[in-house]
Amino acid sequence: MAISSSKKNSQTNSCIAANTVTPEIDGISVDCVIFGFKKESLEVLLVQHAGGESEGSWGLLGGWMKRQESADDAAHRIIYELTSLDNIYLEQLKAFTNPSRVLDRRIVTIGYYTLVNQEDYNVKASLDVREAKWCKIKEIPNLIFDHNEILNFSLLQLQNRVRQAPIGFNLLPEKFTLLQLMHLYEEILGIELDKSNFRRKILHMKLLVALDEKQQDVSHRAAKLYKFDPDIYKKLTEKGFNFEF
Amino acid sequence: MAISSSKKNSQTNSCIAANTVTPEIDGISVDCVIFGFKKESLEVLLVQHAGGESEGSWGLLGGWMKRQESADDAAHRIIYELTSLDNIYLEQLKAFTNPSRVLDRRIVTIGYYTLVNQEDYNVKASLDVREAKWCKIKEIPNLIFDHNEILNFSLLQLQNRVRQAPIGFNLLPEKFTLLQLMHLYEEILGIELDKSNFRRKILHMKLLVALDEKQQDVSHRAAKLYKFDPDIYKKLTEKGFNFEF
Repeated sequence: MAISSSKKNSQTNSCIAANTVTPEIDGISVDCVIFGFKKESLEVLLVQHAGGESEGSWGLLGGWMKRQESADDAAHRIIYELTSLDNIYLEQLKAFTNPSRVLDRRIVTIGYYTLVNQEDYNVKASLDVREAKWCKIKEIPNLIFDHNEILNFSLLQLQNRVRQAPIGFNLLPEKFTLLQLMHLYEEILGIELDKSNFRRKILHMKLLVALDEKQQDVSHRAAKLYKFDPDIYKKLTEKGFNFEF
Repeated sequence: MAISSSKKNSQTNSCIAANTVTPEIDGISVDCVIFGFKKESLEVLLVQHAGGESEGSWGLLGGWMKRQESADDAAHRIIYELTSLDNIYLEQLKAFTNPSRVLDRRIVTIGYYTLVNQEDYNVKASLDVREAKWCKIKEIPNLIFDHNEILNFSLLQLQNRVRQAPIGFNLLPEKFTLLQLMHLYEEILGIELDKSNFRRKILHMKLLVALDEKQQDVSHRAAKLYKFDPDIYKKLTEKGFNFEF
């Protein structure tokens, strides 16, 4: 099964990672994109740095990974330290490694993202940040380093995910209208959807349970309410689906 | 839109990545999982280290990321340096950051993976590696560091991908039978499939063009040949599908 073999031993100029070398890196950071959904609006949590060379600039929630912690642990710790947010489910995006992503220093950052219901979390800015705010996706300012790139990458990831699994459905009230669900998809995907087309496709997917109830206290004609069947939801989360709009 | 604000400036104990700190990391490496398909068998390319503390051990194709290169560039360079393989499409898996993944040193590795047709590549082991070989998925030995974990993670990733997009179809001959396609899926997914079930589902997906030809020179009853329509293939690659078995 061997393809080719070189018996000559060589330890010089080795690129095998097992050999000890001087680090060619100044540090590893973790940056977190926290998407928050609130009243049919998709926003992202940003912090304004209170000190250091980036004082006054806006950026994602980020910080250094410590020697004795994994990137996952670092991400949770940093989010807690900066904003007091706890118990957040985070997913690693990838490592961002462009050598010029930070001026004069070689810093690799590992990106994380999640999507939460804003109302479930009470954000408090820590001493390290002057301010923490939710910013509408369409109003993102220029961020430090490559944070706009990380944000854009995670938005694409989120958009792919909502087409393949029932991600974000937990952001709706327990009973909801098809229009509310459509607005959730429209906001995350950043596109306008055709109402009857959406209705036909989502009902065809058999994701929803139609209730014998209608909206209450609305000025327009009350729409039918739906909910998710936990069993169907669980099954679809595991095996996925493909939602073409 | 501000949630909470702390006007007090503090540069002490800051965890914001913009501040300069001593690196808590000894180095960043890149490790590549190259899956190769050959005669209905899924294999992975391994190298036996020729020097350093890992001499004699088997591992994935890996090496250090240099200060002036991205992880993508490092991955391509390392694969070329170790095996002379060129022009390989690689996808980043994620960063592996367990603090105890390498004994006594803090090394983060960025994983990559790809799936190629073995016959398209001529692997040559470099001076840094004693041997490079394709190893059957079911016969993977104990690898250095967390390389078994990286390999398992990339296999899961590959299995998810073949359920969602026509990945790997380019590993078959231009004209193929449904049984050949089924064996490709069986080998990648590591499961046995039901022949008539597979036939029904794959034909229902309208992925394939049925040809007016049958197999030649076979001892058993000649099976019908199929090929892919490049337009359908392109469309399905872009929008994805969900193949339930």
